[in-house]
Amino acid sequence: MKVNGVHYRSIWYDNELAKVRIIDQRWLPHDFRIVELETLNDFAVSIRDMWVRGAPLIGATAAYGIAISMENDASDDGLQNAYDVLMKTRPTAVNLRWSLDRVKMELSEIPYEKRAEEALKLAHYVAEEDVGINKRIGEFGLEIVKNIAATKPSGEPVRLLTHCNAGWPATVDWGTATSPMYHAHEAGIPIHVWVDETRPRNQGAMTAWELESHGISNTYITDNAGGHLMQHGMVDMVIVGTDRTTAQGDVCNKIGTYLKALAAHDNNIPFYVALPSPTIDWRITDGVNGIPIEERSEREVTHIQGRTTGDGIGEVKVTPEGVPSSNPAFDVTPNRLVTGLITERGISAASQEALAEMFPDMLEG
Amino acid sequence: MKVNGVHYRSIWYDNELAKVRIIDQRWLPHDFRIVELETLNDFAVSIRDMWVRGAPLIGATAAYGIAISMENDASDDGLQNAYDVLMKTRPTAVNLRWSLDRVKMELSEIPYEKRAEEALKLAHYVAEEDVGINKRIGEFGLEIVKNIAATKPSGEPVRLLTHCNAGWPATVDWGTATSPMYHAHEAGIPIHVWVDETRPRNQGAMTAWELESHGISNTYITDNAGGHLMQHGMVDMVIVGTDRTTAQGDVCNKIGTYLKALAAHDNNIPFYVALPSPTIDWRITDGVNGIPIEERSEREVTHIQGRTTGDGIGEVKVTPEGVPSSNPAFDVTPNRLVTGLITERGISAASQEALAEMFPDMLEG
Repeated sequence: MKVNGVHYRSIWYDNELAKVRIIDQRWLPHDFRIVELETLNDFAVSIRDMWVRGAPLIGATAAYGIAISMENDASDDGLQNAYDVLMKTRPTAVNLRWSLDRVKMELSEIPYEKRAEEALKLAHYVAEEDVGINKRIGEFGLEIVKNIAATKPSGEPVRLLTHCNAGWPATVDWGTATSPMYHAHEAGIPIHVWVDETRPRNQGAMTAWELESHGISNTYITDNAGGHLMQHGMVDMVIVGTDRTTAQGDVCNKIGTYLKALAAHDNNIPFYVALPSPTIDWRITDGVNGIPIEERSEREVTHIQGRTTGDGIGEVKVTPEGVPSSNPAFDVTPNRLVTGLITERGISAASQEALAEMFPDMLEG
Repeated sequence: MKVNGVHYRSIWYDNELAKVRIIDQRWLPHDFRIVELETLNDFAVSIRDMWVRGAPLIGATAAYGIAISMENDASDDGLQNAYDVLMKTRPTAVNLRWSLDRVKMELSEIPYEKRAEEALKLAHYVAEEDVGINKRIGEFGLEIVKNIAATKPSGEPVRLLTHCNAGWPATVDWGTATSPMYHAHEAGIPIHVWVDETRPRNQGAMTAWELESHGISNTYITDNAGGHLMQHGMVDMVIVGTDRTTAQGDVCNKIGTYLKALAAHDNNIPFYVALPSPTIDWRITDGVNGIPIEERSEREVTHIQGRTTGDGIGEVKVTPEGVPSSNPAFDVTPNRLVTGLITERGISAASQEALAEMFPDMLEG
């Protein structure tokens, strides 16, 4: 999407330079920096140290990493080495493994001399595939926004509330929960986005940055404020992303999502979840009891990063000495609170039957 | 309550020094500092610049301010001047006006030469009255905690969740929502308190500090975490304070309280509100539609204060450039989500009938 009027993706191949470029996301939302990735090590570092983040983007970056490696050493050993180096960067990232396995398998079957060219095509394909999925999510979500806009006096914005960052920098382009926002904006439908801060890691700052950069009206609010806004008719719909969705449509997303779903339900406000179908975990049905929740470092709670008065980036400790913290990273929103799941195949009810009907080819067993 | 093993109130008269001392709360929870207030100006500054905070404590501080002024000038002019100087410090604080009116009226009726002595007695009385109210709230709340403890295996803590700071430093002693915690602790009932951070002003840091200082087990959590903890049976009761309660028991408290009430309701967890009866506003029935919500400075949202690496106190800006923020300071929890109101007269259901029955003498009209 756009930054200062120019269209960017989070990763792209510069044909003139014949190089891969990324947005170095370590400095967002405070600084916008672009870097080139030239060596296998560059790619490994960019994934490991979170210059890039978000499952789809990590997958695409790994694919480009293999492609660039093939230019130097397209042998089987070279391929295996690139695979190993990249796999080690984020050992638990499912998309990373999936992307690397796929690229390695396809390249293994073709002659050395064609691998560099083919690997680049494959990386382009992986990236385009993500863009396509998110675009379709946006198109389906756009219909919901359009329907709400139709119930309002002309020119009055549709007010969406979102939690965390399911935005374009976590994907190759469009984002998931943000894709309907960008599509509505491009369709000329006035919207306003309430952006939850999303403590402890304040991913709302990233969401506000990307919306602001693209020219979409938004307001940054504390995680506490959303219920009050909903009580007073200031929110027309809630839309969030998800890390994992169960076979019955329970949604595991960033901690605090459940509270917003409760408030939406209490105020008859539709609550939608945008998701690429690979995030559906068909092995789990009951999300609250079936999904183990990652407990992350206390330090994310006790310390907050931001811009210091000296214009640098620093942090402060917000808790008193000796007080322990707890940091569950996700919570589960039961399907009874979810109005609909916006996928690349259309909008599904959050139920086992509806999901099975939309994705018969993906069911296990 | 206790700090480092020593019992403190938030304001007290040191008989040996013949001086009023307070905890200078500007530095809490990072530094614990005690100062003496000697002149009328000291008292005015301490209220205006929030060295003291919380309605009951402001009222008591103002009463002591009058008392100290009377030592220097007990004339009618002196009394009026002290009244005017103190009233100007926080013009919208209802307790401040109430306390000053009361003291001025009583002093006006007695001879000059007795005013200093009488004013000091009055100030003591105002302070003791607050302590007594909060103590009774604690005793009634203790019964609830005891009943929950009785359902658990011996030695297992009762887990309470609280939002914001309704603690002893906002009163003269005990606090309101914290009073049942301190009473349970003194009664030897094991408890654990989940302390909501309470963005934007992070009053949870104060709550964690006072509990930790008194030796009560607690954990600081983000405002997003409570729903997840409740889903997983890790919270036995929620208890909060209130800024204003309506005649039907709707509760206006710090922003985000409503979200915790929804989560408690969704998980069958009792949700209690501790309140001194003067916070009941008998003129308002429907809280959601009847109570105007203060919109505070954006800066409270965009900037966060804490301890810097250099061991000083500093702040960072968490939002990106150009992004607006909104800062509604309170929300309203409808009475249907409130299990009970813990007052100095006992525990009332959150309904017009029950409140009217408990406080027949306070009803308007």
